[in-house]
Amino acid sequence: MSICHDRIEIHTNGKGLYEITDEVQSKVDKCGVQNGTVTVFVQHTSSSVIIMENADPTARRDLEEFFDRLVPEDADYFTHDSEGSDDMPSHIRMVLTRTSEAVPIVDGKMQLGTWQGIFLFEHRRALHRRRISLTIIGE
Amino acid sequence: MSICHDRIEIHTNGKGLYEITDEVQSKVDKCGVQNGTVTVFVQHTSSSVIIMENADPTARRDLEEFFDRLVPEDADYFTHDSEGSDDMPSHIRMVLTRTSEAVPIVDGKMQLGTWQGIFLFEHRRALHRRRISLTIIGE
Amino acid sequence: MSICHDRIEIHTNGKGLYEITDEVQSKVDKCGVQNGTVTVFVQHTSSSVIIMENADPTARRDLEEFFDRLVPEDADYFTHDSEGSDDMPSHIRMVLTRTSEAVPIVDGKMQLGTWQGIFLFEHRRALHRRRISLTIIGE
Repeated sequence: MSICHDRIEIHTNGKGLYEITDEVQSKVDKCGVQNGTVTVFVQHTSSSVIIMENADPTARRDLEEFFDRLVPEDADYFTHDSEGSDDMPSHIRMVLTRTSEAVPIVDGKMQLGTWQGIFLFEHRRALHRRRISLTIIGE
Repeated sequence: MSICHDRIEIHTNGKGLYEITDEVQSKVDKCGVQNGTVTVFVQHTSSSVIIMENADPTARRDLEEFFDRLVPEDADYFTHDSEGSDDMPSHIRMVLTRTSEAVPIVDGKMQLGTWQGIFLFEHRRALHRRRISLTIIGE
Repeated sequence: MSICHDRIEIHTNGKGLYEITDEVQSKVDKCGVQNGTVTVFVQHTSSSVIIMENADPTARRDLEEFFDRLVPEDADYFTHDSEGSDDMPSHIRMVLTRTSEAVPIVDGKMQLGTWQGIFLFEHRRALHRRRISLTIIGE
């Protein structure tokens, strides 16, 4: 049994989904673990990690539209707004999605379904550098 | 320390919750790990894994009714609809819930609370065969 | 490689967020694992574990206000109400958030981002004793 820690950095330029599937797999390759899990952990409270349909871009656009309507920036009861109108919505969108995701590894490959991709889900409008911590445990 | 990979297949016939607690425990038994975790991972983007109250069926019905209202099939801004009106809502419902869940194992038994059950949450109306990947790590 | 199981108990007195970051870190310290993951698992279906902004209390109040509006207690279609009007909403709020969260450990410390705290998210109004199971795997 062995453990590898690694990190991915993503530069985001606005709300939306940024696919990281290939970067995660390449870190699994580098680690050399053949069987186990990789835990993908986002070190922020205004962006998330999700697994999402990665074939059709319209699915991602509809998802973003849904979240913009579910957590509107102009809700009049928000008081946490020191960083702008997308500040509080970004925390809520993060809580409604995920900070960590664990993906099985078999024979050195992540066991994703046919249409599954791993994405950073950015909830802020401004430019951000996002750190994603990876922990690979297995043999 | 050892690792077991296993798989559960569920045939679904419409939206709703399908309990898999006993199947997961039986895979843990077969693996023989006494202390560790089991990671339950759904290999699809239109169904989820959740842990839910498993005693009263009315709780599950109310949950489904809530999701049908939160993510209505007839939202006029959805463009990803090649597989029908439940296509885009299924991805959103998946993102709002979970793809993976990790459950502790102590003395060979999953440490679920009294009312906790593990469920596949199906978001599509048509018949589907769903694959759930299990990774058991421990000693 | 080694495994530690441990438990945290929290006494809650109403809906809201209860930070447990320091308790989780102290259990990691006690275990002695330097590199690995800690899986935080809530053994209930009416409370959740989330990672949230832990600096500004207004962010937590806005989050609670959002959930009170998203899952209103007076929804007329709820039938699962034997324990009161906050019964069914508590299960839905749990499903929309998380039962488990996995946090990386490097050099004995959880790799949380600057503003990340681990919280029990209580969804019931009455007094409750909540059990959180921890599984630490690593070396």
